[in-house]
This record gives sequence, C-alpha cells and structure tokens, in this order.
Amino acid sequence: MIAYLNGAFLPKEDVTISPDDRGFLFADGAYEVIRCYDGKLFKAEAHINRLGKGLGELRIDFPDVYKLNTVAEKLIEKNKVQTDQAIVYFQATRGVAPRTHRFPIKPVPPTVYGSASVFAPHQDELDNGIKIILVSDTRWARCDIKSISLLPNILAHQQARDNGAPEAIFIRDGAVTEGTHSNLFGIFDGHIFTAPESNYLLPGITRQVVLDLALVLGIPVKKFPILETQIIKADELFIAGTTVEITPVVQVDDWKVGNGQPGPITMKLQKAFYEYIKSTR
Amino acid sequence: MIAYLNGAFLPKEDVTISPDDRGFLFADGAYEVIRCYDGKLFKAEAHINRLGKGLGELRIDFPDVYKLNTVAEKLIEKNKVQTDQAIVYFQATRGVAPRTHRFPIKPVPPTVYGSASVFAPHQDELDNGIKIILVSDTRWARCDIKSISLLPNILAHQQARDNGAPEAIFIRDGAVTEGTHSNLFGIFDGHIFTAPESNYLLPGITRQVVLDLALVLGIPVKKFPILETQIIKADELFIAGTTVEITPVVQVDDWKVGNGQPGPITMKLQKAFYEYIKSTR
Repeated sequence: MIAYLNGAFLPKEDVTISPDDRGFLFADGAYEVIRCYDGKLFKAEAHINRLGKGLGELRIDFPDVYKLNTVAEKLIEKNKVQTDQAIVYFQATRGVAPRTHRFPIKPVPPTVYGSASVFAPHQDELDNGIKIILVSDTRWARCDIKSISLLPNILAHQQARDNGAPEAIFIRDGAVTEGTHSNLFGIFDGHIFTAPESNYLLPGITRQVVLDLALVLGIPVKKFPILETQIIKADELFIAGTTVEITPVVQVDDWKVGNGQPGPITMKLQKAFYEYIKSTR
Repeated sequence: MIAYLNGAFLPKEDVTISPDDRGFLFADGAYEVIRCYDGKLFKAEAHINRLGKGLGELRIDFPDVYKLNTVAEKLIEKNKVQTDQAIVYFQATRGVAPRTHRFPIKPVPPTVYGSASVFAPHQDELDNGIKIILVSDTRWARCDIKSISLLPNILAHQQARDNGAPEAIFIRDGAVTEGTHSNLFGIFDGHIFTAPESNYLLPGITRQVVLDLALVLGIPVKKFPILETQIIKADELFIAGTTVEITPVVQVDDWKVGNGQPGPITMKLQKAFYEYIKSTR
C-alpha cells in the first residue's frame, strides 16, 4: 500500500510518526475520510474544505490543504483501487515538537498523512437495517470540528458493539446530537427531522446530501432536535455518513422502530443517494 | 536521549510510531508525567497506579503497567539525569490496528512509550506567582482519566499564553474544575478550598500531597467547589501539579489576587512541599 506523508508518496510500512508528534501526544489534529466509487472521489472538495476549516479553528497552519484533492487522486491511482469501492484517509496534526501544552513557539510544519484502501460496504446493514444504542454524550463542546480527539467516540462505539449494535447515538440534554461516526435522521408523519448545526455535532457531508435529496424528492425537512423521549415514536430512523451511506435503523436499544423493517422513505432516499453517486461519476 | 518502546530501550530518534497506532488516530490512550529530583522518582507508585487505573477504565489491557516503575528508573539512569531535575513521560495506547472505531477484534498489544528528560522549573513563577485566565470547560465528561485526548487543554492553554498567562483554569457550571495541567486551590479565611474529586477533574497527585501537608500543618481543608464568582474574593490562590509544583497565583484575568503578591499560606505550603520532597530522597 502506498501512503502519503508530508509531500511524499511511500510504502505505508515506511511511514513513521515521531513519538513527539502532537497528534500522538495530544490529539492535536483533524482528519477526513473520503469515499471513492469506481475510482471517482465523492464530495472530495466538501471534505477538504471542512478539513481546512477545522484546521483553521485549531490554528494549525496548513495552507496547502486544498492540494489534498490531487493527493487523494494520486493515492487512489497508486494503490490501484480505481475499480473498487475505496476510502481515502487524511490526517493533519500540529507537527513534531518537544512535549509542552502550548503551541510550538518556533513554528513547525504540520504532519500530513494520507492513505487509500479498499472499503467493503456493509451490504446486509444497508439492506436490512441496524440496531443502535443511545448513550450519554460525554464529548467535548466542539464536536463541529472533526478532530482526532475521538476517545469518547471510541468508547461509545465499543459499547454499541458490545450490545450487538454497529452504532451508538449520543444524547445531550435530552436530545440526539449525532452518532459516533454518523448523523441520525428520524421520519415523523412524513417529515424528516435531524439535529440543527451546532457546536455539538459535525456538519456531515452525507447529511447535507440527504437534505439536498429530500428537497428534490419533495420530502419536507425540519432541522429540529430529536428528543430522546420521541425517538421510539419515529415512523422511521436512519443514519447517514461517509462509510455508512444511508443505513436504515430498525431497532433502538430493545425497541423496534416502526414495524422493525427499513422504512419506505429511508429506502427511497437510499436509492436516490446511489443514483446521485452514479450521476457524479 | 534513550527512550523506551514496548520493552526495549533505544535511541529516541529510532522510536517510530505507526500511523495506524490508535494513539495517533483516535487519542486512544493514557499518559503520566513523573517528576524526578536528584535521581529519585517522586510519587512514582501513585502515578503508575493512576495510569493502570486509567487504562483499566479505557479497557486497554496492559498487565505489565506496574513494571514501569523499574523502566522509569532505568530511563533516568540511561539518560544520566540522576543529578538534575528531570521528568519521565509514559504513554500507553490501545496499539496498532487497521483504522476502525471499535476496539481491535483480534487483540493487539498496547503501544507503550517512555522517555526521560531534564526539566527546568520555572523559578520566577514559583517565587513570584503567575497570572491565570478563566475559560469555559469545554472538555469531555471523563477528565478523571488522564487520557491523551488533550485537544481542549491545548487550546485553553494556548489561549492563556496568548493572554500572558501560563495557565488557564476551567469553569464548568459556574465553578472551577481544574487547570489545563494543574489543580487550583483557594484560601478563604484561613481555609484551603479545592474542587472535590469527580468525573470532571483529575485526582492530582500533587493535589493529594498538598492536602496531606495541609493536615500536617494544621490548615483546615474544604473539598468544596470554588465558584467563579468567588475566585476574586480569595485571600490567596495557587495551582499544584507535577510540573508546576506549588505555584502561587497573583492575578486572575485582569484582577489582582489579595495584594498581588504570593500569599503566606501558599508559601508555607510550598516550603513544606520542598521539605517533603527532600525527606523522600
């Protein structure tokens, strides 16, 4: 596998990160995952813009962030994953410096790492839906930044796996914020509900595609928090994200959603999503 | 400099971390900093116990954690920092595995990294006191675990530096939790106040030494939250931590603490602290 590190393409096994990298010591960085369908990057510009914005918020100076689009294309090409479903991963950290909380006094270049690999979608989950669990949102207050400070996501995600679910959904102040690696949507009386943008959730790129598709399909959208007490009253639920695409949710903890089958509006959106992907390649 | 990695001692420049290390990708790990005075580790057992406890909470399996005491001694010896003020740093992560939120299905060994280096105390700050700033506590809800998920600490700490202060103190729900790398204490009418143990702050090892010394010195202690509105009414303030030891606080944002000089109880505790260190080596 060929990876990218600070301007160079090299075998992944030759990529070495310093123990003084602020990504390793402090989670001082941000990342993106970009989906690639049949060799064509999906929404790469939106992902890279978001990375640039996040790094700006973190005051990590990486003016060449917008060149990562080309890097992503080269990673796909060099790894010969053009004909497969693949993902490109990028991570940028504040760089290597002796360990101290403050930013390096003498500026250092960021560490920029990228990789591309084949990604196998979870077809059974996409077709038949998944269980989710609800967990308390213990995360920090800047979840709108896609930082690598992911420990709470890891712990919640594993809690889901331990309970036979591939996703955990965070509840803060009685309402859904988002999942550990996806956004949650609910259908109530023909309307799509999802949490409005705030500092407590990531403005998901697939989430935005869902909102755009809903507009085209004439499904009314309400950016309004889904309350914890209302979740089980949803006619349908689904999660959306780069890796999960549009995955129906058929069970929440021990409760069935609707009749326990993927809902018609969810599957209509999923179908439209795949058609949209096809139209872009 | 000689470092430690997964059982081996090697030149630090030869230490390489995989880009698939879960510490680099997810902040999935914990750390400790241990002070060393004239070659003698200070409170090493307490630090290593805390690391073991934190790793347990994170479900990172590292049964040999208690052997790090010996590793710390060897790091001090091999780096010939016995006669200096030094620190030993340890970090353990969930190890190297292909990137996915869930814990590795096939267990992998943790990554265990250690280093020792000379540490120069900030004598001027210890003697004359520092300014602190107050910032909103945006961190996650498990600050009792000394995880490497430190991005909010970094950002708050840099905000302090930008305002001419070497420490930022977090305020949550109207009360002090702790600093970015220290615990805060206030003296009110001859009583020492500090936040009680909770999930929102680290049970500091130097904090415990302060509490023990206060008992010996006959200074009454109240483990009670210091309210944001009360901070400027403190007769004295100080921070305590492994690197800052007992550092007086003479300014909070734009307000002077007391008469703007290190307070007598603070300096009495600081003196007792150094005597205590001497007595342990």
